[in-house]
Amino acid sequence: MIKSNNPILVSWIPVPENSDFPIQNIPFGIFSSKNSEPHPATRIGNTVVDLSQLADFGFFDRMGLKDLSCFYASVLNPLIANGPQFWSILREKLSQLFNIENDELQGLEEVKKLALFPVNSVEMHMPVEVGDYTDFYSSIEHATNVGKMFRDPDNALLPNWKHIPVGYHGRSSSIVVSGAEIHRPKGQTKADDADAPGFGPTKLFDFELEMAFITGKKTEMGESIPVDKAEEAIFGMVIFNDLSARDIQKWEYVPLGPFLSKNFGSVISPWIVTLEALQPFRVEGPEQEPAVLPYLEYSGEKNIDIKLEVLIKPEAGKESTVCKSNFKYMYWNMAQQLAHQTVNGCNINVGDMYGSGTISGHTPDSYGSMLELSWKGTKPLKLDDGSERKFVLDNDTIIMRAYAEKNGVRVGFGESAVKILPAI
Amino acid sequence: MIKSNNPILVSWIPVPENSDFPIQNIPFGIFSSKNSEPHPATRIGNTVVDLSQLADFGFFDRMGLKDLSCFYASVLNPLIANGPQFWSILREKLSQLFNIENDELQGLEEVKKLALFPVNSVEMHMPVEVGDYTDFYSSIEHATNVGKMFRDPDNALLPNWKHIPVGYHGRSSSIVVSGAEIHRPKGQTKADDADAPGFGPTKLFDFELEMAFITGKKTEMGESIPVDKAEEAIFGMVIFNDLSARDIQKWEYVPLGPFLSKNFGSVISPWIVTLEALQPFRVEGPEQEPAVLPYLEYSGEKNIDIKLEVLIKPEAGKESTVCKSNFKYMYWNMAQQLAHQTVNGCNINVGDMYGSGTISGHTPDSYGSMLELSWKGTKPLKLDDGSERKFVLDNDTIIMRAYAEKNGVRVGFGESAVKILPAI
Repeated sequence: MIKSNNPILVSWIPVPENSDFPIQNIPFGIFSSKNSEPHPATRIGNTVVDLSQLADFGFFDRMGLKDLSCFYASVLNPLIANGPQFWSILREKLSQLFNIENDELQGLEEVKKLALFPVNSVEMHMPVEVGDYTDFYSSIEHATNVGKMFRDPDNALLPNWKHIPVGYHGRSSSIVVSGAEIHRPKGQTKADDADAPGFGPTKLFDFELEMAFITGKKTEMGESIPVDKAEEAIFGMVIFNDLSARDIQKWEYVPLGPFLSKNFGSVISPWIVTLEALQPFRVEGPEQEPAVLPYLEYSGEKNIDIKLEVLIKPEAGKESTVCKSNFKYMYWNMAQQLAHQTVNGCNINVGDMYGSGTISGHTPDSYGSMLELSWKGTKPLKLDDGSERKFVLDNDTIIMRAYAEKNGVRVGFGESAVKILPAI
Repeated sequence: MIKSNNPILVSWIPVPENSDFPIQNIPFGIFSSKNSEPHPATRIGNTVVDLSQLADFGFFDRMGLKDLSCFYASVLNPLIANGPQFWSILREKLSQLFNIENDELQGLEEVKKLALFPVNSVEMHMPVEVGDYTDFYSSIEHATNVGKMFRDPDNALLPNWKHIPVGYHGRSSSIVVSGAEIHRPKGQTKADDADAPGFGPTKLFDFELEMAFITGKKTEMGESIPVDKAEEAIFGMVIFNDLSARDIQKWEYVPLGPFLSKNFGSVISPWIVTLEALQPFRVEGPEQEPAVLPYLEYSGEKNIDIKLEVLIKPEAGKESTVCKSNFKYMYWNMAQQLAHQTVNGCNINVGDMYGSGTISGHTPDSYGSMLELSWKGTKPLKLDDGSERKFVLDNDTIIMRAYAEKNGVRVGFGESAVKILPAI
């Protein structure tokens, strides 16, 4: 395994200061250039590396694969399907190829010309074909805030919350990659004092700051993944912006959960950062009290220290930070979520996506949604350009960034950005 | 368009009395024989027709397709993607080829030997790759029964129910085809008088009698399908058994909806009956009062008269009918469901599946789930072998059948059957 926190590793590809993509990261994504179809890639610094070109030149010939077709696919699913041992071998191989002390590729100008692209010259695509998408609700601060606002301030958490990593199925068709533009959705809403619902664009457009993991294993129906094996079934993670229409949600969600208030669009960061690359940043998580049922018991460092930030950029203005949070606040971790998802025999596929739920911290500036940040619109936020926000306005761009850092090594995700267009 | 209720049409393939598959039906499915990979097929009587063989012999050469690859795929998605005009042309072509008055194929013994299979010699597979699956909740009798049992008998329907075709996203990975065996799921449940939840096999295993439609159109994000165009985007229908674990559901479903109580398995009938074949069986539906919002207003005969039946077959016993219902009872129809699904700009894909929700009628013997039939277990049902059922027992096989009939023509779905095995 690559020591992702090993600061001694240096690449012959230049890596700017504070880049999310040093040689310790080696994330995976799908890119296309002006002249090429979408193909698997990795990124070092501001350079995108076309894995299909490296495959062409035989660099992946001795990794135990039957054939090299996974390096030419338009999604990462076939590459991921090769399993966790292969993920490690591939990252190790790439780490060697781009190590400044290694001359295997460094000296081959012709290959470099074909395989390396400046990041601003390429287009990024959905990294995986998502079969099923689950959204969890695993931040205790977020669940508590929502409970305080909409239920009982003194009894904010529902009785099942500390026993179950509560989750629900979402729409996979509308998960898109950073850079998207999404129209404000229309739908039914009903004011508390109205007799009947009305129809129109949502007035309470929101984001939810989440991370999502992508599974790297296919199971059969009836099969469960034990909590202590769950991380072997997780390929990596992305930033996940779960766009939400709060007024539509309020009117529709009882009794079967959120539906049209969520399924019009979710936005991920384009590079999947592997769980392996995030290992050095593990930390203890919140204590779970009362004790969880045995199938959810996790031993070891439960959480990962990933710094999170949300910014809003008005049409003509500059970015303003509206939230700083951290993935380490999660009450339920990814292994617990996946063990729960499959404990009833529900089968999973390579490329499934699992959102964490909104990640809020303890302080009001760490809440992961406008609903919480503006406390239902009662406390407007001031942006750097002087304008105010209770919720998201038309032509605002919502940007989420995430990175882990330790011992001078930073492993990050880049960003998830989406511009909100007026309703059609 | 084929006149699906035209009793004059007769096939040269024998069709037994009361068959669901006369020449007026022409459904589509995916089959494999001992020597062949899964391929698209249709069925007449008890004969399965391999469409890839008919394509080989040039019968589909003049239908305006760029190539014939859709007839060789392992799922129907590429065939369906050709659109509603093509669906009509293809059904018309097959209707001609198998018409007793047509000699084009009837006399070609060599082709018939390669293309026709007795239904009991083949295996049926999932007809489509399901991208996203939505489950609606559109039977007023079912929603009322559930409301009476779990909320307020005098105020059973929730305030949003008559305004919204309430629905939620489900798990597409665990939708399987008739003939499956599914293990009783395990999960968390909590008795009302218990302090904490326990873990074990569900004690309240249930079915839900549903129909599902399959979309035949891909839309872009931001696009809505108006209610009067929705049926052009629907390819056809199947029987849908939404297996449910009522005790797991009760503990988990607030506030985000059913999750593990539903996602361990759903079972469909293998033949997709086209909406075109079902046109002759349209009927008025229940009046909608109060009036629905304009985007949900449907004009014309809203419903389809499809007779539904559920049977339970104990391990060593015979089938007993436990429910007789009808698809015509639905309060919200498929066009309204699809218009609602997309009104916020949610994009759909070819092969998506949309369940109706449990279809209950007015009388206690027409309720579409054991929960309602046994009224929460308070009124056990007696089977023909003398045994009793409050819910489904291990080794029971649940069988659902459905057909429409008018003017002596019967167009049916065959069956959805699933055997429930003990928990692992």
